[in-house]
Amino acid sequence: MVFRVSVSSSRRAVRTWWLLVVVSLCLFVSVCRAASPSSQEEEDSAMENIVTEKKAEESHRQDSADLLIFILLLTLTILTIWLFKHRRFRFLHETGLAMIYGLIVGVILRYGVHVPRDVNPASMSCVVNASPATLLVNVSGRFYEYTLKGEISANDVNYMQDNEMLRKVTFDPEVFFNILLPPIIFHAGYSLKRRHFFRNMGSILAYAFVGTVISCFVIGLLMYGCVTLIKQVSQLGGDFFFTDCLFYGAIVSATDPVTVLAIFHELQVDADLYALLFGESVLNDAVAVVLSSSIVAYQPQGDNSHTFEAMALLKSFGMFLGVFSGSFSLGVATGVVTALVTKFTKLKDFQLLETALFFLMSWSTFLLAEACGFTGVVAVLFCGITQAHYTYNNLSPESQDRTKQLFELLNFLAENFIFSYMGLTLFTFQNHIFNPMFIVGAFLAVFLGRAANIYPLSLLLNLGRRYKIRSNFQHMMMFAGLRGAMTFALSIRDTATFARQMMFSTNLLVVFFTVWVCGGGTTQMLSCQRIRVGVDSDQDNSVSVADGSERRSTKQESAWLFRIWYSFDHNYLKPILTHSGPPLTTTLPPCCGPLARFLTSPQAFENECQLKDDDSDLILTDGDISLTYGDITVSTDATGAHTSSGRGFVGVATSDDLDRELACGDHELVMRGTRLVLPMDDSEPPFTDSRHLRM
Amino acid sequence: MVFRVSVSSSRRAVRTWWLLVVVSLCLFVSVCRAASPSSQEEEDSAMENIVTEKKAEESHRQDSADLLIFILLLTLTILTIWLFKHRRFRFLHETGLAMIYGLIVGVILRYGVHVPRDVNPASMSCVVNASPATLLVNVSGRFYEYTLKGEISANDVNYMQDNEMLRKVTFDPEVFFNILLPPIIFHAGYSLKRRHFFRNMGSILAYAFVGTVISCFVIGLLMYGCVTLIKQVSQLGGDFFFTDCLFYGAIVSATDPVTVLAIFHELQVDADLYALLFGESVLNDAVAVVLSSSIVAYQPQGDNSHTFEAMALLKSFGMFLGVFSGSFSLGVATGVVTALVTKFTKLKDFQLLETALFFLMSWSTFLLAEACGFTGVVAVLFCGITQAHYTYNNLSPESQDRTKQLFELLNFLAENFIFSYMGLTLFTFQNHIFNPMFIVGAFLAVFLGRAANIYPLSLLLNLGRRYKIRSNFQHMMMFAGLRGAMTFALSIRDTATFARQMMFSTNLLVVFFTVWVCGGGTTQMLSCQRIRVGVDSDQDNSVSVADGSERRSTKQESAWLFRIWYSFDHNYLKPILTHSGPPLTTTLPPCCGPLARFLTSPQAFENECQLKDDDSDLILTDGDISLTYGDITVSTDATGAHTSSGRGFVGVATSDDLDRELACGDHELVMRGTRLVLPMDDSEPPFTDSRHLRM
Repeated sequence: MVFRVSVSSSRRAVRTWWLLVVVSLCLFVSVCRAASPSSQEEEDSAMENIVTEKKAEESHRQDSADLLIFILLLTLTILTIWLFKHRRFRFLHETGLAMIYGLIVGVILRYGVHVPRDVNPASMSCVVNASPATLLVNVSGRFYEYTLKGEISANDVNYMQDNEMLRKVTFDPEVFFNILLPPIIFHAGYSLKRRHFFRNMGSILAYAFVGTVISCFVIGLLMYGCVTLIKQVSQLGGDFFFTDCLFYGAIVSATDPVTVLAIFHELQVDADLYALLFGESVLNDAVAVVLSSSIVAYQPQGDNSHTFEAMALLKSFGMFLGVFSGSFSLGVATGVVTALVTKFTKLKDFQLLETALFFLMSWSTFLLAEACGFTGVVAVLFCGITQAHYTYNNLSPESQDRTKQLFELLNFLAENFIFSYMGLTLFTFQNHIFNPMFIVGAFLAVFLGRAANIYPLSLLLNLGRRYKIRSNFQHMMMFAGLRGAMTFALSIRDTATFARQMMFSTNLLVVFFTVWVCGGGTTQMLSCQRIRVGVDSDQDNSVSVADGSERRSTKQESAWLFRIWYSFDHNYLKPILTHSGPPLTTTLPPCCGPLARFLTSPQAFENECQLKDDDSDLILTDGDISLTYGDITVSTDATGAHTSSGRGFVGVATSDDLDRELACGDHELVMRGTRLVLPMDDSEPPFTDSRHLRM
Repeated sequence: MVFRVSVSSSRRAVRTWWLLVVVSLCLFVSVCRAASPSSQEEEDSAMENIVTEKKAEESHRQDSADLLIFILLLTLTILTIWLFKHRRFRFLHETGLAMIYGLIVGVILRYGVHVPRDVNPASMSCVVNASPATLLVNVSGRFYEYTLKGEISANDVNYMQDNEMLRKVTFDPEVFFNILLPPIIFHAGYSLKRRHFFRNMGSILAYAFVGTVISCFVIGLLMYGCVTLIKQVSQLGGDFFFTDCLFYGAIVSATDPVTVLAIFHELQVDADLYALLFGESVLNDAVAVVLSSSIVAYQPQGDNSHTFEAMALLKSFGMFLGVFSGSFSLGVATGVVTALVTKFTKLKDFQLLETALFFLMSWSTFLLAEACGFTGVVAVLFCGITQAHYTYNNLSPESQDRTKQLFELLNFLAENFIFSYMGLTLFTFQNHIFNPMFIVGAFLAVFLGRAANIYPLSLLLNLGRRYKIRSNFQHMMMFAGLRGAMTFALSIRDTATFARQMMFSTNLLVVFFTVWVCGGGTTQMLSCQRIRVGVDSDQDNSVSVADGSERRSTKQESAWLFRIWYSFDHNYLKPILTHSGPPLTTTLPPCCGPLARFLTSPQAFENECQLKDDDSDLILTDGDISLTYGDITVSTDATGAHTSSGRGFVGVATSDDLDRELACGDHELVMRGTRLVLPMDDSEPPFTDSRHLRM
């Protein structure tokens, strides 16, 4: 009986869904029609003013209708993806679906909606020696203000007058960079699964930095070969320089395996593989952005601006370093400021204020970086990581939830918007240049570039790691090199020249192919490569603990870099920026006493015995680090008591004696145990919940 | 000892706050400087293309810096307001504070930052017979696209070239209407405290509709007198017609007692007074928007466009009705669609999808209304009310929280942004016209207009209500007629003519005065009028229940209108749109059997005995309505069993017999009791938590 009920309700749900889809499509077509400018305009009315007002109103109505198209698209995507999740279909992710719906709507807009021409852009020829940002036009005594939108290539001028509707649904490309990408990237930074990320940080950094640069140059060289081949065989139709090839290599090197990661999370694939993929994809976005802007900045002096010049190359390289480190520092700085503010004020008591502050500070990172000439997206990424690492611990539990959910929602909406726009733009973009040979060459280059990133680097890394990245993991990483939002946003940013237009068209196809084919085939690839699924990340650790040599090797891997970083972070940064960690009075030299007392939060004195702070999950503690711990704890007992008597925290200290004893005992037990990583049941990094990360 | 700790931490907090303020101000001034366009532009470089690119980049950097100014302002407001809340200062609300900070920054921008002129808008005289929306300018072979920003009055042309910086921080006025107001208004609708709102709905509607129209005309007439007086005494400096006066009356009639309501909530002032004020302010915004647009639409035929013409008046009136009802229906329609979608799909299992859908549907209301030529803000308001009334009950508990918190945050940010912009614009707006006589006249007219709204209407309403609106309540309502975001947004929307500029300047002063003086004096006024504070709204009911005559009178008040509405809502709308209420099979006539079965959710059959649905809190149930209940319950037992055997819900029905018996018993107990309102402990309307409504 229960079964019958569930079947009937499921059938009803499907029926409802179909109904909704049909209604949405009807609504959608009517919106498209409404969005087309109405042709009844009473030009006979003499009142110029009213006509202008009407025009502005008409334009506003059209804008609303255009935006409504996308909202309906997203709504449809949500409903369909619910059905897929309900039925446990895994072959198509929401982003892939958003692209399909975008494609359908693009076809409708392109071929289905007839638009009467009535808004004629007037073409005037004036002799002005520069194009100003603002233009005042004196139309028979009245002044109208016009703002510069951008340059239009001569052949676009005809197109432009051709189809107003298609132009209308074309967003300013900067929208992607300034509005849609920041929340996506921030969310990625804010949800880095910290434990495994930091454990594999060396490898992740290698893949992200060295790998992306390798991939960029391999793709660039291959594409240059391809382009010269095309020039030999037939006509190319426009200029395509080596710098363009390198630029193409840079923008197509940003991987975005949303689809794959969502499936990994659902199936609980090995946490290290997940961390490697996710960490690489997050960081290589940042590298690709800065790399591409550095390549654009390569401008040799003299007449021929596409020759090799050492000076210009050096300048580009310097710019890469400067912009990257500048953005990095700005991002970290705002994160640190937010952490300090949330630590030293009692904003915790007012969750709304706290959440608003967090949101505003994170946004201001982006604006600050852009205003300073750095890259906002990169700054936002590192701000997100810093916020997750420090500020998150200072927030009230409610604000932790709120901020997580807020950025999760923003990420979801922005991501699906971008992917549906991608589908749409395949038909509505008016300057597509599809060159079959170039496309084939690009697919090949992308494949080989990814291979040149993963396999040689893995080989090198495996020399250092004794806990090897196995070959099936390497194949999986190779396969998961999807291209997504970042590649698209970088491609659409500038489509003025022939080369850029061809890149854009080709990249659209690359994204479609990788998202649908590679994304859709993830489960098949997992079973084909015999990668275990359903692995609990904690269980995974105890397995590796059981094997003695494995344990040693992991320790080895994270030894030199992270022992330094971790002890610095734990002893100084954590106590300064959060309420956890050992009191600064114990870790700083005695001369800094007053400062240390000012910076240490009262909670740190209370918690000084509870060494299991939020962060010990990212480090291995068998051996010297636990010794360091031991040292500190001992000295803390002496100095901490001394200082607290001076500051008045003794009341707390004495009342918690029993608790402390228990906590210490518990900790000692752990120290004697054989576990590689401290048990971390009490500390959950943001977004570890399977539904939280990527739905 | 504990005391010492808290004192020292509080002192430390204050010290930290001062530090933060100083740092923020320094940062702020440097941002202002950064925002001023840098003068080093290498014009000698021959490459036109690079110059254009640089210009675009420069412009983007400036935009980022400008936005950053507001973000910093909001951050500062948040920190200060935290301090105020921490110290329990009630004399200044966050919105008032945002205005003060805005003023300070406005002064700095106006007098402190020197901006070198280098971006000269070129002025060209061309003979074009209309101003097109898009302009293509052919600058020596290259085409540049310009978009129409708006008309500029001749005297602005000089100003414009004067101070680029001040123009930069001036936002497009449509931003307020299309981006900032919708979340504020939606939040207001979504958080209407339903029980007391519906209980006082008759009075609220009277104040909002009749009262706003009265206020509009009283203010309009008084201002017309004032303007003619000014014309007699001195020169006015421009045209000011009667329609302008009426328009002024309409835009200044929208009250916005954010400050007062926040204090009411904190002090737990009488819930009926709260509901009257909040309900009125929410609805009169909608009335004022539509009213002002109808007045603008008043255009008599012929040469003199400012004479009286019955036809044009009728057309305006028709437009008012059309736009209002159209926006209303659209808002309700999207709310209903969302409710149906959330009811018939199992979207509940995926909270992120659910929240995203809710957000998108609510946003689409606005866009749909704007695309159809209705008023998006009004549609959004009624959409919010519908969502709270129906959809909210279908959401998963997590999504209920998420949506509440999301719109709360958006409301907070948008509101404070508007108020800080208000402060800023007093100094940065370049066409202020302050006429002392007009200002005095306006203050008087606003006062009298409010009085003409509240006192006569209260008198009339008290004839019908036996539960009178006492005179101290009336004085409080009179006092709480603050003007805020809506008045500002309506004033700034069009500042092209002399009359509109004078209105805008005057309205700024009205807002400042009312928010600071009336808002700041709320606690004094409360104690002066001897209005009880600390009243628990439930306790308040039992007090009125104790008094027999009071109870009868309240019943009387909501009798004729709400008995009809409530029974319709409860018997048909609730069961169709949510999972609660009696099954439709019992309330619809038998001929609609299959439809009723399709629309009724399985839960409704399960819950059919639990009549304490989410909504019974808004209605009085002593007498005939409980009889209606009884009837339905009896018939349900008969028909429900019949239908459920056909559909397969018997399993549930039989297994829940005991529960049902218990629930029925519980309900009967309530019926026999003396409580005016059913006990509602289990159903909490959105935002009843004191910290949720307005912080």
